[in-house]
Amino acid sequence: MLPQWIIEAKRDGCELEPDQIRDFILGFAQGRIPDYQAAAWAMAVYFRGMSLDETAALTRAMLDSGDRLDLHHVTRPRLDKHSTGGIGDKVSLVLAPLAAACGLAVPMISGRGLGLTGGTLDKVESIPGYRTDLSPAEFARIVETCGCSIMGQTPRLCPADRKLYALRDVTGTVPSIPLITASILSKKLAESLNGLVMDVKCGRGAFMTARDSARELARSLREVGRRLELHVSGWITAMDQPLGRTAGNRVEVAEAVRILQGEGPEDTRTITLALTARMLRLGGLVQTDADAYPLMEQALRTGAAFRTFAKMVRLHGGDPTFLEDPAAIEGRAAAKASLANPEQGWIVDVDAEAVGRAVLLLGAGRTTAKDRVDPDAGVSSLKKIGDFVEKGQPLAELHASTLDRIEAARPWLARAFRIGEAPPPAAPLLLEDLDMLPP
Amino acid sequence: MLPQWIIEAKRDGCELEPDQIRDFILGFAQGRIPDYQAAAWAMAVYFRGMSLDETAALTRAMLDSGDRLDLHHVTRPRLDKHSTGGIGDKVSLVLAPLAAACGLAVPMISGRGLGLTGGTLDKVESIPGYRTDLSPAEFARIVETCGCSIMGQTPRLCPADRKLYALRDVTGTVPSIPLITASILSKKLAESLNGLVMDVKCGRGAFMTARDSARELARSLREVGRRLELHVSGWITAMDQPLGRTAGNRVEVAEAVRILQGEGPEDTRTITLALTARMLRLGGLVQTDADAYPLMEQALRTGAAFRTFAKMVRLHGGDPTFLEDPAAIEGRAAAKASLANPEQGWIVDVDAEAVGRAVLLLGAGRTTAKDRVDPDAGVSSLKKIGDFVEKGQPLAELHASTLDRIEAARPWLARAFRIGEAPPPAAPLLLEDLDMLPP
Repeated sequence: MLPQWIIEAKRDGCELEPDQIRDFILGFAQGRIPDYQAAAWAMAVYFRGMSLDETAALTRAMLDSGDRLDLHHVTRPRLDKHSTGGIGDKVSLVLAPLAAACGLAVPMISGRGLGLTGGTLDKVESIPGYRTDLSPAEFARIVETCGCSIMGQTPRLCPADRKLYALRDVTGTVPSIPLITASILSKKLAESLNGLVMDVKCGRGAFMTARDSARELARSLREVGRRLELHVSGWITAMDQPLGRTAGNRVEVAEAVRILQGEGPEDTRTITLALTARMLRLGGLVQTDADAYPLMEQALRTGAAFRTFAKMVRLHGGDPTFLEDPAAIEGRAAAKASLANPEQGWIVDVDAEAVGRAVLLLGAGRTTAKDRVDPDAGVSSLKKIGDFVEKGQPLAELHASTLDRIEAARPWLARAFRIGEAPPPAAPLLLEDLDMLPP
Repeated sequence: MLPQWIIEAKRDGCELEPDQIRDFILGFAQGRIPDYQAAAWAMAVYFRGMSLDETAALTRAMLDSGDRLDLHHVTRPRLDKHSTGGIGDKVSLVLAPLAAACGLAVPMISGRGLGLTGGTLDKVESIPGYRTDLSPAEFARIVETCGCSIMGQTPRLCPADRKLYALRDVTGTVPSIPLITASILSKKLAESLNGLVMDVKCGRGAFMTARDSARELARSLREVGRRLELHVSGWITAMDQPLGRTAGNRVEVAEAVRILQGEGPEDTRTITLALTARMLRLGGLVQTDADAYPLMEQALRTGAAFRTFAKMVRLHGGDPTFLEDPAAIEGRAAAKASLANPEQGWIVDVDAEAVGRAVLLLGAGRTTAKDRVDPDAGVSSLKKIGDFVEKGQPLAELHASTLDRIEAARPWLARAFRIGEAPPPAAPLLLEDLDMLPP
């Protein structure tokens, strides 16, 4: 069957056969089907969508385009979490060691940031010495030794996804729920997981701004996971204001350390515990999410979770002593400034997207995949919705390599805040439980 | 502006600015914008369409990607005809010399056949010695000398269209009215015409099977032509049964010669005269289409049209004596057979698409652009709708290089005919006048 016939069938709204999808994707991964046919096909998928069966076939083909990690010697239940990405999202840095300290294995393969959303990989790489380019054997050994490892993608895992994602990024075909679903799940299936917890972000700072789209993606992930025998659960969570009080790389590591030390911002802690609890339940270590809380509190209180993080950093070649003083981690940038509050009042809104743009301008993110991030750049001490701030008091601290960058970012950051005369109503963080979504 | 932003804007249904379209198309023609971005863009255009202004900008960009023919020394009005392609369509072979004999200049650049529809270029190339790869200067000289020339595309005319068409052919993006419009008009504008007559075919043997689509294409051609100062007129014509009584290459040349000699099938003659009359009117040689008929009858009766054809063939390096005996031209294939009528009755239907498939199997067409056509293959003496045929009498003659090919084609050809007990009602050939279509 000629590739253009498969493109035409999708263009005309037909449901493709699993074998057609497999031939197309493997042909693309192996270079027999050129980029231009894959690009036209992806655009047809954007417009026509895919059934859950088609999406499952696509996921399986992308998975089968490469290797799976061999983690058969890891005896603990293997669980991972994936977030669709938000501003200030440092959850993985806390969740991975916390879940490991509670008894799970967390083989976490992460990506770099692009555009407004940061990447976990950039955050761990901001720890001096931390290597993310492990061999599969090194990765497996670290997971076995300390229960968790955060590394980057390897060329042999899901090469079809890697190639298709790079193509989608430059052909306007990123925002397609079946393509997003297959991209996420194929990479997670390559980790040989027993279960996956999703953090589907929804709001102005997230990829999915509308609740309906977030629901559709969540449902797609759950149902396609079911077809591939991967238990997918998790939450749709709010991403209207940034998560926590920092956004950048080292500033987020500092905040993660604070949470692992029993402090840190309430919202990040709430989401992290909810997602970790779901992992513990999926891993069979507890019967209900609620049963997980005493375990997690203990791992945080005793320092077991923090020690696991430090051990993981050491096993990756990083300097664990770097983690000891969060204030020092946060204080390294050459240029710093405060954003002063222009009028006394309650913070009624912090636009995550505007904060994301400011962080990008400070140098902490990437506009193109080739950009280098500045590990020390970012914002910290962000005021949050519901905070009361006196006139002239700081709304946030800005960190960058030069004052020019700070002045470029300042108007965007200022635009993010809205001050009111009364405290706003409290808004929920955990919007919807994936288990409760109708099929 | 990044190319992906232009793709995304079209994907989201925005109207693109002329400069955006121009940058994208010239960037693609020059290789700065890769095939995969052009393919995704074309698929977005397939789904979202284009306004007439966008289509005009696309046409102009494709025209400006290359040279225009320099025909300023040709003093006659320069007119051409373009058909969207059908089975047995040999109109150009008659129309070009007829219009030239009546006083027009017809600088006709034609294409090769692909799939079910034949190409005028294959037909003229079936005349021994006929060269279609002329330089622009040779072409211009022949147009000046005998009033018409039929040659192939040159690499320097509309290179963007050539590249985009090749891409569309393998990415499922051929059937898009704005893309078809721009492809046709850019090539015709490069011929430096004073006017263009369109034959928009509609029916089972045509690209447009539905009348609404044919109307939409016709309107698009007319209105985009208006924006580019090219007067586009013509007809939507029926293509349910093949045109004339032959389909192939030399068999069609033979039929064209018969019409030029005042014989030949009624339908082909009717359409050819209607289109030529419109060209003569657009060229200002007559006031109304009806005024053109005495001129055309005279050119046929006196042999002026046939002599113009023979002269054009000679100027292209072809052998004009080859044209003298239509029966000999038709009789050259190594293998020949008749398709016998299984039951006495009236022909109530001849499915052009099925005849097209049979012709392809006989070797007269191409499945891929690289295939070679057999000049002698085809069908002749086709019975037409309304003919009465005795049982056992031939419905058609098949011509091929081997009997195997004839046997492969025979079932398709047999399937094309439907015999009834009463003559069918007469159906019109000229369905709609482009001048009468509402804007």
